[in-house]
Amino acid sequence: MQNTKEILTLNKSSWEKAAERFFGRNPLPDYGPFSPSEEKLKLLGDINGKTVLDIGCGSGHSLLYMAEQGANELWGLDLTTKQIETAREVLKDVKGKVTLKESPMEENPGIPFNHFDIAYSIYALGWTTDLKETLSHIHSYLKPGGVFVFSWEHPLHDRISYEDSSFLFNKSYNVEGPEYNEAWHQDVVIFHRKLTTYINTLIETGFKIEKVMDDVVIPADATTDPARWYFRQKAELMPATFIIKATKM
Amino acid sequence: MQNTKEILTLNKSSWEKAAERFFGRNPLPDYGPFSPSEEKLKLLGDINGKTVLDIGCGSGHSLLYMAEQGANELWGLDLTTKQIETAREVLKDVKGKVTLKESPMEENPGIPFNHFDIAYSIYALGWTTDLKETLSHIHSYLKPGGVFVFSWEHPLHDRISYEDSSFLFNKSYNVEGPEYNEAWHQDVVIFHRKLTTYINTLIETGFKIEKVMDDVVIPADATTDPARWYFRQKAELMPATFIIKATKM
Repeated sequence: MQNTKEILTLNKSSWEKAAERFFGRNPLPDYGPFSPSEEKLKLLGDINGKTVLDIGCGSGHSLLYMAEQGANELWGLDLTTKQIETAREVLKDVKGKVTLKESPMEENPGIPFNHFDIAYSIYALGWTTDLKETLSHIHSYLKPGGVFVFSWEHPLHDRISYEDSSFLFNKSYNVEGPEYNEAWHQDVVIFHRKLTTYINTLIETGFKIEKVMDDVVIPADATTDPARWYFRQKAELMPATFIIKATKM
Repeated sequence: MQNTKEILTLNKSSWEKAAERFFGRNPLPDYGPFSPSEEKLKLLGDINGKTVLDIGCGSGHSLLYMAEQGANELWGLDLTTKQIETAREVLKDVKGKVTLKESPMEENPGIPFNHFDIAYSIYALGWTTDLKETLSHIHSYLKPGGVFVFSWEHPLHDRISYEDSSFLFNKSYNVEGPEYNEAWHQDVVIFHRKLTTYINTLIETGFKIEKVMDDVVIPADATTDPARWYFRQKAELMPATFIIKATKM
């Protein structure tokens, strides 16, 4: 497999092509497929007047939600030129101060330290080539006591495949590292990491764990088509999404 | 399914019969099947001179290990009369002060508050009918800053069955509650709880999460017999055991 720089270049290139497909897909208050929403969980707390940072802001719709909740300083970081351009357009009427940075999340493109009340990341953190480095950066951006909430696909979900009406566990949950991802049409490399690795790396970088959620909520109109990456029968058996809330100690 | 009292009565009765079969099975420094040991993990810290409490002490072999490491006050709690009798015998030459209590872990049979440096539980906590109540008790027994370490079968392990050379996921990971357990010859009721439920309940009862481990270590002589509850091929795919270290805030 490629080195870190090659992985980031490949992923950025695929995201430039995929950006349109992901326009406004599952932003806050959604945390991801088959997951309870922020409206139910209230993990972010009161957003009004807060300084917020979106790691992997995509098309900017989660930042728009934060603006609607009264956040008064909104920062977004994304790897993809096309996403940053789209986010700029999506956020053009926002009253708070908006700053968007195009950068891998493993680097600091000029984000201030000890500045944010809330950092969050919706389905983006699994893309990092270096979880510890990325979490250390996020830790440094937050004020002491600041909140970090992120969601990502549950690491169990892609270990189980659906074949002949059975759910087969035939890819090791234990083996971590970069992998080519089946769900993408373009070539991308995503990192398989255990749920415990997310938890322990947060702790190692100075966070306190407040909550780890993998509850499954199945909407009445959920698809039952097993050709889809997420579908009802699978969600009935296992979580599709996890969410972690941590605070900066 | 039965009510709490009936479950405890059933489980106690099964344990009275099974006690001999579990004599000295996987005590500390082992945390459980296919798991790294305390000698590698050092989760308990320095045991010398410490006041320790074993939740579900079984035949007393983990307490014996703690005594050998220099613990000077050793308390054990177990549901089973036969186990307490065996533990008394196993620990008869120990120099530190030994106190053994026969009780469900959901109740306090006279264990002092704010007294222990270390509480631990090896493959016992999944038996509790009320996790929150049990963890609240353990929290109250510990000194502030005191350590609690426990291991239990990974809640994924019994969701996956081995049929015709395939590992099938056909029991929901999401649905929690009391279940009759396949691995036991006697009738017992064990509670299925998600890993996140253990983590969140610890946090709710006043613990700080220090580490969540589900690393798999496969010994060279590990059985490859799929008729066994734990076997190599399954451990290569998924964790058999998890361990959590938390501290009293």
